[in-house]
Amino acid sequence: METLSIPQPEVGASFRAAMRRIASTVTIVTASDESRRHGMTMTAVSSLSMEPPSMIVCVNQSTFLHDILQSARGFCVNVLRHDHAAVSTAFSGKATPEERFLTGDWERNAYGIDFLSDAQANIFCQKAAAVPFGTHTIFIGTAIHVRLNEDASPLLYRNAAYC
Amino acid sequence: METLSIPQPEVGASFRAAMRRIASTVTIVTASDESRRHGMTMTAVSSLSMEPPSMIVCVNQSTFLHDILQSARGFCVNVLRHDHAAVSTAFSGKATPEERFLTGDWERNAYGIDFLSDAQANIFCQKAAAVPFGTHTIFIGTAIHVRLNEDASPLLYRNAAYC
Repeated sequence: METLSIPQPEVGASFRAAMRRIASTVTIVTASDESRRHGMTMTAVSSLSMEPPSMIVCVNQSTFLHDILQSARGFCVNVLRHDHAAVSTAFSGKATPEERFLTGDWERNAYGIDFLSDAQANIFCQKAAAVPFGTHTIFIGTAIHVRLNEDASPLLYRNAAYC
Repeated sequence: METLSIPQPEVGASFRAAMRRIASTVTIVTASDESRRHGMTMTAVSSLSMEPPSMIVCVNQSTFLHDILQSARGFCVNVLRHDHAAVSTAFSGKATPEERFLTGDWERNAYGIDFLSDAQANIFCQKAAAVPFGTHTIFIGTAIHVRLNEDASPLLYRNAAYC
C-alpha cells in the first residue's frame, strides 16, 4: 500500500460539491494594522482548543484580509445572527473596506479592532501562529476577550445560499 | 500598544459559551492504522483550500482517534444527514470502537478506511500535516477521493443539542 488511494481526476469538482453541502454559521472576520482595516465574510472558521481558548480561520492568500493578517496582532470573529444577511453580503463582495463598514452596526475597541456590536458573539483573538497550506493560510488565534449578546439563531450558509 | 488587549480572567467560560452558539454540521471522522480503527463525532472540521482540495480536523490529543491519526496515512470525513442523530450519538460517547461501528451502515474501502455508506458525503483525505496547538492537533488532509450521495439536510449541532 504505497498510497492511500489513487487520486480521483475530478476530485476538485466533487470536493467543492461536498463542501457546499456542509452548513456553516456565517462569521465576519475583522482585522486591522497601523493604517488599514478590513472585514471578510467567512465560514472556514472553527474552534480549536479550550486550553488555551483558541480558534482558527482559513484565509485565501490572495485576499486583502490575508495581507492585513500577516502584520496584524490579532483579529475578531463576529458570529452573525439570522437577521444579518445584509451585513454578510456587504462583506463578501467586491466593495472596498470603507464601503463594507457602512453596512451594520460597527464599533471599534480601544485597540483599533472593529466589531459588529449586535453580533451574537465577538471573539477577540491574539494571533498565535500562521500555517500556510496551498492557496490558504490557517491563522490560529488565542481568545483574549469575548463579548456575548443575547442568544439568537445564527445565520447559516449552505449550497451557496443562506438557510 | 504592547498587547492587543488585557486578557479577560473568565475568557474560558465566555469562549465556551460563544462556541456553543456556533451551529455546525456534524461529521464523523474515521481513521485506521495497521491494527486499529476508530471514529469520532466532530464539529471542529473545516474546508481549508480548493487547490489542493483540503480539509482540517482539530482533534483533542487525549483521544484514541488522535493516537491513530498520528500513525495513519489518512482519514475520512463523513458528513451526516439530518436523520443520523443516532449514529452521531454512538460515536460521541464512551463506547469502544467496535461497539460504535455497530450503529449505522458502515463499509470499508480497499485501503481499510471505514466510511458511512449513506452519509451525504465521504471525503477521503491523505494526511498532509499535523500542527499541535494547546490541547489539540490540527490535522490537514488532502482530499483524494470524494463519494457523494443524494443531497439532504445536514445534521446540525448547536448549544449542546441537535437542531
